[in-house]
Amino acid sequence: MTAGSSIDPNHPAFAHIPVWVQEKLSPKAVQTIQKVHDWVENECIPAEPIVKAQIEQDKKTEWKTPKLITELREKAKKEGLFNLFLPKSFGHLSPGLTNLEYSCCADIMGKCYWAAQTMNCHAPDTGNMELLAKYCNEEQKKKWLQPLLNGETFSAYSMTEPDVASSDATNISCRVEQDPSDPNMLVINGRKLYGNCKWNAELGFYILMACSDSNNPNPWSRHTMVIVPKDTPGFRMVRNLTIMGYDHAPEGHGEYLYTNARVPKENIILGMGRAFEIAQGRLGPGRIHHCMRLLGQTERAYELALLRATDPAKKPRGKLIGAFDSNIERLAHIRMTLDSLRGVVLNAAHTMDVRGNKAGKYAIAQCKVLVPAQCAELIDECMQMYGGQGLTQHTPLPEMWTYARFVRIADGPDAAHRHQGEISRTLWEMGN
Amino acid sequence: MTAGSSIDPNHPAFAHIPVWVQEKLSPKAVQTIQKVHDWVENECIPAEPIVKAQIEQDKKTEWKTPKLITELREKAKKEGLFNLFLPKSFGHLSPGLTNLEYSCCADIMGKCYWAAQTMNCHAPDTGNMELLAKYCNEEQKKKWLQPLLNGETFSAYSMTEPDVASSDATNISCRVEQDPSDPNMLVINGRKLYGNCKWNAELGFYILMACSDSNNPNPWSRHTMVIVPKDTPGFRMVRNLTIMGYDHAPEGHGEYLYTNARVPKENIILGMGRAFEIAQGRLGPGRIHHCMRLLGQTERAYELALLRATDPAKKPRGKLIGAFDSNIERLAHIRMTLDSLRGVVLNAAHTMDVRGNKAGKYAIAQCKVLVPAQCAELIDECMQMYGGQGLTQHTPLPEMWTYARFVRIADGPDAAHRHQGEISRTLWEMGN
Amino acid sequence: MTAGSSIDPNHPAFAHIPVWVQEKLSPKAVQTIQKVHDWVENECIPAEPIVKAQIEQDKKTEWKTPKLITELREKAKKEGLFNLFLPKSFGHLSPGLTNLEYSCCADIMGKCYWAAQTMNCHAPDTGNMELLAKYCNEEQKKKWLQPLLNGETFSAYSMTEPDVASSDATNISCRVEQDPSDPNMLVINGRKLYGNCKWNAELGFYILMACSDSNNPNPWSRHTMVIVPKDTPGFRMVRNLTIMGYDHAPEGHGEYLYTNARVPKENIILGMGRAFEIAQGRLGPGRIHHCMRLLGQTERAYELALLRATDPAKKPRGKLIGAFDSNIERLAHIRMTLDSLRGVVLNAAHTMDVRGNKAGKYAIAQCKVLVPAQCAELIDECMQMYGGQGLTQHTPLPEMWTYARFVRIADGPDAAHRHQGEISRTLWEMGN
Amino acid sequence: MTAGSSIDPNHPAFAHIPVWVQEKLSPKAVQTIQKVHDWVENECIPAEPIVKAQIEQDKKTEWKTPKLITELREKAKKEGLFNLFLPKSFGHLSPGLTNLEYSCCADIMGKCYWAAQTMNCHAPDTGNMELLAKYCNEEQKKKWLQPLLNGETFSAYSMTEPDVASSDATNISCRVEQDPSDPNMLVINGRKLYGNCKWNAELGFYILMACSDSNNPNPWSRHTMVIVPKDTPGFRMVRNLTIMGYDHAPEGHGEYLYTNARVPKENIILGMGRAFEIAQGRLGPGRIHHCMRLLGQTERAYELALLRATDPAKKPRGKLIGAFDSNIERLAHIRMTLDSLRGVVLNAAHTMDVRGNKAGKYAIAQCKVLVPAQCAELIDECMQMYGGQGLTQHTPLPEMWTYARFVRIADGPDAAHRHQGEISRTLWEMGN
Repeated sequence: MTAGSSIDPNHPAFAHIPVWVQEKLSPKAVQTIQKVHDWVENECIPAEPIVKAQIEQDKKTEWKTPKLITELREKAKKEGLFNLFLPKSFGHLSPGLTNLEYSCCADIMGKCYWAAQTMNCHAPDTGNMELLAKYCNEEQKKKWLQPLLNGETFSAYSMTEPDVASSDATNISCRVEQDPSDPNMLVINGRKLYGNCKWNAELGFYILMACSDSNNPNPWSRHTMVIVPKDTPGFRMVRNLTIMGYDHAPEGHGEYLYTNARVPKENIILGMGRAFEIAQGRLGPGRIHHCMRLLGQTERAYELALLRATDPAKKPRGKLIGAFDSNIERLAHIRMTLDSLRGVVLNAAHTMDVRGNKAGKYAIAQCKVLVPAQCAELIDECMQMYGGQGLTQHTPLPEMWTYARFVRIADGPDAAHRHQGEISRTLWEMGN
Repeated sequence: MTAGSSIDPNHPAFAHIPVWVQEKLSPKAVQTIQKVHDWVENECIPAEPIVKAQIEQDKKTEWKTPKLITELREKAKKEGLFNLFLPKSFGHLSPGLTNLEYSCCADIMGKCYWAAQTMNCHAPDTGNMELLAKYCNEEQKKKWLQPLLNGETFSAYSMTEPDVASSDATNISCRVEQDPSDPNMLVINGRKLYGNCKWNAELGFYILMACSDSNNPNPWSRHTMVIVPKDTPGFRMVRNLTIMGYDHAPEGHGEYLYTNARVPKENIILGMGRAFEIAQGRLGPGRIHHCMRLLGQTERAYELALLRATDPAKKPRGKLIGAFDSNIERLAHIRMTLDSLRGVVLNAAHTMDVRGNKAGKYAIAQCKVLVPAQCAELIDECMQMYGGQGLTQHTPLPEMWTYARFVRIADGPDAAHRHQGEISRTLWEMGN
Repeated sequence: MTAGSSIDPNHPAFAHIPVWVQEKLSPKAVQTIQKVHDWVENECIPAEPIVKAQIEQDKKTEWKTPKLITELREKAKKEGLFNLFLPKSFGHLSPGLTNLEYSCCADIMGKCYWAAQTMNCHAPDTGNMELLAKYCNEEQKKKWLQPLLNGETFSAYSMTEPDVASSDATNISCRVEQDPSDPNMLVINGRKLYGNCKWNAELGFYILMACSDSNNPNPWSRHTMVIVPKDTPGFRMVRNLTIMGYDHAPEGHGEYLYTNARVPKENIILGMGRAFEIAQGRLGPGRIHHCMRLLGQTERAYELALLRATDPAKKPRGKLIGAFDSNIERLAHIRMTLDSLRGVVLNAAHTMDVRGNKAGKYAIAQCKVLVPAQCAELIDECMQMYGGQGLTQHTPLPEMWTYARFVRIADGPDAAHRHQGEISRTLWEMGN
Repeated sequence: MTAGSSIDPNHPAFAHIPVWVQEKLSPKAVQTIQKVHDWVENECIPAEPIVKAQIEQDKKTEWKTPKLITELREKAKKEGLFNLFLPKSFGHLSPGLTNLEYSCCADIMGKCYWAAQTMNCHAPDTGNMELLAKYCNEEQKKKWLQPLLNGETFSAYSMTEPDVASSDATNISCRVEQDPSDPNMLVINGRKLYGNCKWNAELGFYILMACSDSNNPNPWSRHTMVIVPKDTPGFRMVRNLTIMGYDHAPEGHGEYLYTNARVPKENIILGMGRAFEIAQGRLGPGRIHHCMRLLGQTERAYELALLRATDPAKKPRGKLIGAFDSNIERLAHIRMTLDSLRGVVLNAAHTMDVRGNKAGKYAIAQCKVLVPAQCAELIDECMQMYGGQGLTQHTPLPEMWTYARFVRIADGPDAAHRHQGEISRTLWEMGN
C-alpha cells in the first residue's frame, strides 16, 4: 500500500520529490519524511549558530559532541527518529524504510550539515553498523554494534593510507600480524589517513583494514579487517587533518601511526584474509548516503541564493540581484541540474531496493561520478551570488562546497568510479 | 496491472529503462516496446543506406517520401505500430499508452532518424494531430486530421519568422486579415521560416500562426491560427533551408513568402484571435517528443563509439582505442550522463501522466534545457572517437549531432526555457 | 626596424592585434596587413553570395573553382597579395613576412572562408608547397612546385586511411611497391580518406604517404611519399566526403581507391622509406595555419552576434537581444576568450620565428588543443543568439562551426596533441 | 636595451616566460627575475612549514607577522628585493621595472603564498602605496606612505560592506561626516567587511571609503576616502573573517563596526567627495597583481601534480599515476591552459606599459574574468590527483584553491568584469 496520492505536493517536504517516488512512499514513510523535515527545519537549522559556538568553546578544552547535538540525539531517539537508515533485516530496530524512502529522508537531513548525526544516521557509522551487523558474530555485535545503535558511542573506518595508492585497496600496506609473544594477540604497524578523529571524546573504536598476508598469491586474500579500540597502546593520532582548511571538529579526520599496537584476535571480523569479502558486502546503499545528503546541502545553497537574489537591500545598479536575467538563468540552471541529480540518486536507491546491491553497482558509480562534482559547481555558483561575503563564515556556503568536494573523493576519486561499469571493466581487461 | 516484474532486464529493449519505469509498464506497453525495438533494429537500421540512396535519387526529380519508408508505413500500420503517440482521449485510434510508456517507445524509435515516420510518430505531425483533435470542429477534423491519422498526408507548423524575434511569439508579424473583396475569405501577407518543405510531394497543409488584430490592447488576443493548403495561390516557398548544411530532404525546412495568399475562413482554428489559447494547449507531451527521440539518437552514437573502441583494426600506438583509460573514462561519462538525461525525460512524461500538462511545465522546460545541449556534447565526443572519419557520411554521427543542435533551438532556444520555472517568472516580474 | 608605433590602433585591421605584436611588425608587414584587411572586407566578404551561387551552378556540370575566385586570384597576384605565407628561404618569391606577421594576415583572411584561396594561401597547398620546396629535387620542383606557386593548379595531401588508426601514422597500410613489370614504375594499392576532391577540375596531383617496406624492423623507415598525378589510371575517387553534411565543393574531401595504380619512380620525394623524415619537416608553421584562420572565422561570428544583439527589429520581451545582461556576459566571454586564443596562436608563431620549428612544437600542440575546441564553442554561442535562423544558410555560422569542428580533427585529434609535450612524452615512456 | 637573447631558456626562472616577453626584459630585469626565483626557491618554499608553525604558535597569544617572515623582510630589503612593484615615478625608490617585468617577478613570487610579503610586494599594500603616492600631500606621505615603503607597518583597504551590494560602489553606505562638536574632526558610523585584520600587531591603518554626502545629485561625488588609524576609538573589529574556512592569520580579513569613530580631517585623501576620482586612479596594474601571483600558485600546483604522477610509491593497478593516459591528458590540459592564462596577464601588463592604464582596462577585465575561474579549476584537478590526501594540510593545494576562489571575487565578482568592455558598456546603455 502506498500513500503517494495522499501527499500534499505543495508541502515543502515533498516539493522536490518526483511524482514516481511519491507514489511509492508507504504511509509510514510519508509520515517519517514529514517528521524529518520538521525536525531539520525546526530543531536543527535554527540551532546552527549555537552548535557552532559550542564546538568552538569545547575545542578550547576537549573535542566532544556539542551539548546541543547530544540533547537532540536523546530527543530524536525518543521520537523514533533514530537509525532511520536501518533496513528491514535489522528486525524491530529497523523503521522499515526502503532505500528509496530513506533517500528522501537523508536528502532533507542534508540541509543541515550535522542533522544526520542527531538521528544517528551519519557517516561512517551507518556503513559501519551495516558491516558489523552483517559480518560480526553475536559476541562482537553485543560489544561493538549495540552501543552504536544505542547512540552511546561513535566509530571510525580506517582504510586510506598516505604512503601508497590506496584507492586501489590491494596496495594497502599497514600490517596486522600474529603477535609472536602472545597467541591471542595481533600486532599492528603502519600509518593511516582519515578515519575519524581520535580526539573526539565519544569515539569508541576503529574498523581497520590492514595487510595480514602480503605473500598470499591471491591479492584479494591478503587483507584483514579488525576492530581497534580507541585507547589501544601503540596507536597514536599524529594530527587532526583539515579538509580544505576545516578541522571538522569534533568528528574530524585523523592521521594515525600504529607502532606495535596490540589488539586481541577476537577483534578480527569474519576471519583472517577476508577483508575484501567484507568490503564487497559494504558496497551497498551506504555508498550513496553522502550523495543523498549532498542533495540537501545543495538544496539549501539554492535557497540561500534565492534569498540573496530577492534581498531588497542588495541592488547593484539599482536592481535586485535576481532581476538580472543572467542570474535568473543561473538559478534555473541550478534548480534544473539539482533535480536531475536527485533523479540519479533516487533511481540508484530504488534499483538496489528491487534488484539488490550488486545490480545497483552501476547506479552507485553513476551517483558518485555525477553528483559530487556537479553539486560542487552548483554550490560554487550560489556562493558567487553572495559576492565577497559568500566565502566567509557569514554563510554556510563554504562548508557546503567543501563537503561536496570531499564527497568527490570519499569512497574513491570519481575517475575510479568511471571504471566501475560493465563496459568499462570489459574494455580495461581487453587492454591490459 | 503492470508487467514490470515479467520483463527480462537483459532484453536490449529494456536494458536502459530504469527499474521504476519498468514497474509501471502495462503488458500492452511491454509488448509494444518490444515490437518497436524489433521494428527499429530489423526493419529500419539495416535499411538506412537504402533510404539514403532513394532520397538522393528522388531529389533529382521530385522531393518525396522514399519508397521504402512508404512501404514501411503501410506495413507498420498493418502491424498496429501506427500513431502510437495518441493518448487515450482518441478512443479506438489510441493504442492506450501513457506518456511514460510512449516515451520508452520514442526513445527506441530515435535510434534511427526516420523510424518515427514509419510509425506516423514524427514531428511536427504528432503535435499537429493533437492540436487538430483538440481544437478543430468535426468538419475540419474530417478534412485535415483524418488523412494525417491515416498516414495519407503530412503537415507542417509555421510560426517562426525571419524578421522579428519570434521566440517571443507576441512579436509575430505575418498578417492574416479579412479579404476586402470576399467575405468568406482571408488574405495572408508575410514571411515565414521553418515549417516543413513544400517541395515534399506528400505534404498537404500548414498550420499557420499569424497576426490578425495588431491593435488589440491585449497582446495575447492579436493572433490567429489558420490552415493553409499547400497549393494556395500567393503562397510561395522561397528556398529550402539547410540545417547545419543538411537539406533534410524530403521533409526539409522551408522559407516562405505569403503575397495576398487567400484561404477560406472555414480554415480558422477555434476562432479569430485565439492562437495563444491553442498554443498554450499545445504545451503538452508533444514538446518533449524531440527530446525522447534524441535519447535514442545518443544511445546509437554511444553504440557506435563502443564499436570503434573495440574495433581490432584500429590500434593507435598498438592498443585498442577502448584500451586507453582516457577513452574508458569518456565512454563511462557518456553512458552515465545519457542515463541521467533519460531519467529527466521519463520523469517529465510521468509527471504529465499523473499531474497533467500544466503541472508538467517545469519538467518540460528542464528537458529542453538539459537534454539537447548535453546530448550534443555526448554525440560530439562519440564523433571525436572516430577521428576524421567521424565527420563524414561514413557514420550517421554528424546528422545526429545536427539533430541535437536543432532540438536545442526547436520550440525556443534553451535560454528562453530557463525563464519558464515559477521562480524565474517571479524574479522576472520583480525586476521588470 | 619596426612600424609598431606608427600603427593606428583604431584601424580595424589592428584592433585585435596585441600591442606586443604591433611593436614587432615591419613597415612592409603593416602595409600588407592593411592590404589584406581591405582585400577581405572589400573584395571577398561582399562577394560571398556570388561565390556561393557560382559553386551551386558549377556543380550541375563540373566541380571547379568559381569564376569569381579565379578572377580574384589573378587580381591578388597582380597586387602582390599572393603566396604571402612563403618564408624568406623562398628568395624573391617570398614577401618576407615572419610567421608572426603572416599570422596577422591569415587571421584576417579567415574572416571569409575562401579568402585565403584568392591569395594562394589555402590549405593544404601552403603545407604542400613548403614540403615540395624543402624535399624535391630541381626537376620535381619545376614540374610540381612551380605551377602551384604560379597559382595554375591545386594539390592534395593524402595520408588518412579508413581501415586503420592512421592518427598513428606508422599504421598506414596503403602499399606503394616496385612494379614487377617495369623497373621505372611503382604500383600502388589501398584506400585513402580525405585528400582534396578529384572532381575539382583544377586539381593537379596528390602527395601520397604509403607503406613501401612493411617488414623493415624500423617502423619509421617503412613509408614513402610519392606524387600521384590526378589522372593516374587505377586511381579512382569513390565518393566526395561530406564534412558535417557540407560537400565543400569544389575542393571537397575525397575517398579514394588505388587498384594497381602506377606512377613513375621519379615521383618519389626524397627517397624510398623517407616519409617520416619529410613528415617531421612538415611540422612547422603550416600546422597552425588552420588555427590562424579559425581566429578570423570566430571574429566574424562575433561580429555577426553583435549585429544580432543590436538589431532593432529583434526585440524579445521588448528589449534588444544585446540588452539582456545574460547576453552581455556571453558576448564578453566570447570576446575575451577569443583574444586569449589569439595570444596562444601568435605566441606559437613568434616562438617558431625565434627559436625554430622544433622548439615551437609544444606551442603548436597548445594551439591545436585549445583553439579549435574553444572556437567551436564560441561560434556555437553566436549561432544560438540567432535562434532558429542561426542554423540555416541565412548566416555563415553553421559553416564556421563546421570548420572549427574539422580543425579539431585535422592534423590529428586534440587528444593526440595532448601527448606532444615533453612531460607527456616522458610520462608515456615511463608507463609503457 | 634588452637582454632577451642572453637568457638561458632552460633556466627554470624563464622556462615558462614566452619568447616575446624574454626579448623585452632589460638586463636589470633578467637579474631581478633570477634573484626572485632563487629567493623563492631557496628562502621561502623550504621555510613554509616553519612559517606555518610560527603562525600557529603566535595565534595562541597575539596575531603577528611570523618571526621568520620578519627576518626575511630585513634580508630582502638589504638585497634590493624590496618594493619591486614600484614604477619609475617613485624615483630612486623604484627598481625601474616595467609592469611586464614585474609581472614575471610576481608570477614567481606566487609560488609561495607569503613570498610577496617578504619583498614588500603584497596586497593590499602595493595598491595602497600607489594610491598614497599619487593622491596624498607631502605631510600625509611622510606619515603614512613612508613607513609602508620602509616595511615598518602594514595597511588595509576598506570598501566592501555587508549590508549593501557594494560591488556597485555607489551603494556604499558607511558614513563619514563633519563632527558637530569639533571642526577639525570627522565622525564615522557604519559596518565594513574585509579590510585586513586588526588583530595583526603590525597593522597600522585603514584606507576607508565612506559616504560623506548622500544627497549630492552626482552619485560619483558622494564618497570620500580617509585614513583611519588602527587604534581609533569607536572603531572595533567584530570578528576575523574566514575565507573558505581559513583564518589567513595574521593578515586575516576583518568585519568592522564604526560607532562614532573620530579621525582628524587632515586624514582625508585628496578632498571630500573625491573617492571615485581616487578609485579610478587605482585601476591600474595593481588590479592584476593577484592574477600574476595566482599564475605562480597554479604553477606550483602543477609541479605538485607532476610529483604525484611520478611518485614510485603510488601505483594504482600497478602503474604510476602519470602512466595513465587520462592523467597525461589532464596534465597537458593544465600545462597548456596555464600558459595561455599567463599570456593573458603578460599582455595586460605590457598594454599598460605602452598604452597606459586606461587603455589597459579591457585587458585587466579579461584577466579578472579568465584567470581566477580557470586557475581554480586547474588547481582542483591537481588536488584530485592526490586523492584524499590532496584535500588535507599534507599539501598546500587546498589553500591554493582557496586563493584562486578568493581572487575570483576580490576587486569585484567576475560577472561584473564581463560588463567592463567597451561593447558591453554600450549594450548596457542601449538597454537601460
